[in-house]
Amino acid sequence: MDIGIIGFGGVAKSFIKLLIEKEENLKKRGLNLKIKYIIKSDGGIYNNEGINLKDIVKENYNLKNFSFREDININTIIKNKDIDTLVELTNTNIETGEPGLTHIKLALENKINVVTGNKGPIVLQYRYLKKLADKNNLNLGIGCTTGGALPSINVGSFDIAGADILSIEGVLNGTSNFILSKMYEEEIEYDDALNDAICLGIAEADYRLDIEGFDTAVKILILTNVLMNSNLTLKDIEIEGINNLKKENVLDEKYKGNKIKLIGKVYRENNKIKAYVKPEVLRYNHPLYFVDDKNKGVYYRTDTLGDISIIGGASGNINAAAAILRDLINMT
Amino acid sequence: MDIGIIGFGGVAKSFIKLLIEKEENLKKRGLNLKIKYIIKSDGGIYNNEGINLKDIVKENYNLKNFSFREDININTIIKNKDIDTLVELTNTNIETGEPGLTHIKLALENKINVVTGNKGPIVLQYRYLKKLADKNNLNLGIGCTTGGALPSINVGSFDIAGADILSIEGVLNGTSNFILSKMYEEEIEYDDALNDAICLGIAEADYRLDIEGFDTAVKILILTNVLMNSNLTLKDIEIEGINNLKKENVLDEKYKGNKIKLIGKVYRENNKIKAYVKPEVLRYNHPLYFVDDKNKGVYYRTDTLGDISIIGGASGNINAAAAILRDLINMT
Repeated sequence: MDIGIIGFGGVAKSFIKLLIEKEENLKKRGLNLKIKYIIKSDGGIYNNEGINLKDIVKENYNLKNFSFREDININTIIKNKDIDTLVELTNTNIETGEPGLTHIKLALENKINVVTGNKGPIVLQYRYLKKLADKNNLNLGIGCTTGGALPSINVGSFDIAGADILSIEGVLNGTSNFILSKMYEEEIEYDDALNDAICLGIAEADYRLDIEGFDTAVKILILTNVLMNSNLTLKDIEIEGINNLKKENVLDEKYKGNKIKLIGKVYRENNKIKAYVKPEVLRYNHPLYFVDDKNKGVYYRTDTLGDISIIGGASGNINAAAAILRDLINMT
Repeated sequence: MDIGIIGFGGVAKSFIKLLIEKEENLKKRGLNLKIKYIIKSDGGIYNNEGINLKDIVKENYNLKNFSFREDININTIIKNKDIDTLVELTNTNIETGEPGLTHIKLALENKINVVTGNKGPIVLQYRYLKKLADKNNLNLGIGCTTGGALPSINVGSFDIAGADILSIEGVLNGTSNFILSKMYEEEIEYDDALNDAICLGIAEADYRLDIEGFDTAVKILILTNVLMNSNLTLKDIEIEGINNLKKENVLDEKYKGNKIKLIGKVYRENNKIKAYVKPEVLRYNHPLYFVDDKNKGVYYRTDTLGDISIIGGASGNINAAAAILRDLINMT
């Protein structure tokens, strides 16, 4: 497999590290992953024989210590026609999808498979991109975009293949779930729990997207459009975050044996697909009741395979990188 | 896809029914599943143009109402060379693997893909059969053999592809789990819970295999050999069932906030793979703690994708049939 990597942040760097660690395993599977390009926004490096990844790590991922050229970009890849798979890991922009959207379109138009962890292009144009991929008999791997290591797309694609999905419910945002777990366990106010999340580095700079339900909505939107053949946009989803919850709300339910979780849900009603994100009260027998702390989980109801839940999946750069590798392996 | 079905019990009949129900959906996926053979132990029916499945249901699955011939058997399929996939659903024999083992070998030797729900051949000769399939560039679908609708093999194959499995733990036997849940919830003796399971039709004729841990051992053995590249036999697994548990054992743990579950587990220790089946005490934060009643679940620990659990999957003939269909779809 001849690969170009575009976007060189935390996940991409971890991906390089992972490929070194898993070299033996991949060889045993008969997989030879050759990285020919690593491209950032201001240029990149290229080696037709395959870039020596160990050297990259040795030089602390500083591409400028190699034959870095400012004129290397996505167009170089398209012109050279010497890779079969693009790993797209530029930053997510949920409004425009760029620059990932252009990268993915160009790749698919030019007979190059794509694996991406970038939510923007998938939220905005999944159906178009998937059609383009199908038309050219290509793979579009997006497993990393909804839950990272948690194989939510995979379960929907492979594990319940042949069954009709009646509904999908998910605890999909680690930060919100951590805050709710803190409020529940330590019986503290929302602001204190949020502060804990910030101090521990769990809530990141853009934590508003998490607590206001937006991140969950993006993920449930992708799951819906990919797995239920819908074409929803974010405007079709009713979104309510956890930011208005009070300690009393959480504790009132706790004393009744319940928990409040930020749930993203999609379901069919009168032949229409409906979706929302909001804090919901779960009874102890709900499959997602015990998805606590930073954990995530998705609960699928199907017609012929029953109810299936998948829970867990670690959430760091190395785990997101492992989700990218999983998609690459599954497309061979 | 040109298919022969061999073995015509409850799952095979449900499979016929499912194919009728899902005809539209399968067509939409571009899948045309043509059933050319339905074979029982005393003969079968054959139609090169595809058997009309609706007629089979109309005649209450009585093959003798069609052009049934006693001389139709696996050798007819091999001689005619007109199917690409065998669906093997004869009865499980865990000692000899027969007649399934012969059917599967013959199919794979003659360039025919196999999907099976028959545990016997897989427990006894998985490695040999898998090599044979690989050599001939064929698929061997065995998802239905470990948990039916619960996609335990799938999760291990696709969803954690690229990660190393550190351990697999499972609540894999519905009957045992139902009995333990009854003892826990209703605070009753083992014998009373067993009786309930028998009355409700949950414990079937061969329920000793369930409660003595043998069925769990078979499933954990298959998971291990398929997913951890081992070649264990049942002799390598220490097996203890739930049949010696007393009400006090269950209640003592209940009062401490724990549950006893029949766990099958495989893990690596000093570069060796070890496996056992026994009743274990689970704390409330164990991922399988809430797998109650007839439910099943599997908990995978991995190096790069974290801990992943899959829970649920209904357990009836129609659900097992849906697991067969899933394997067929995933091999296209």
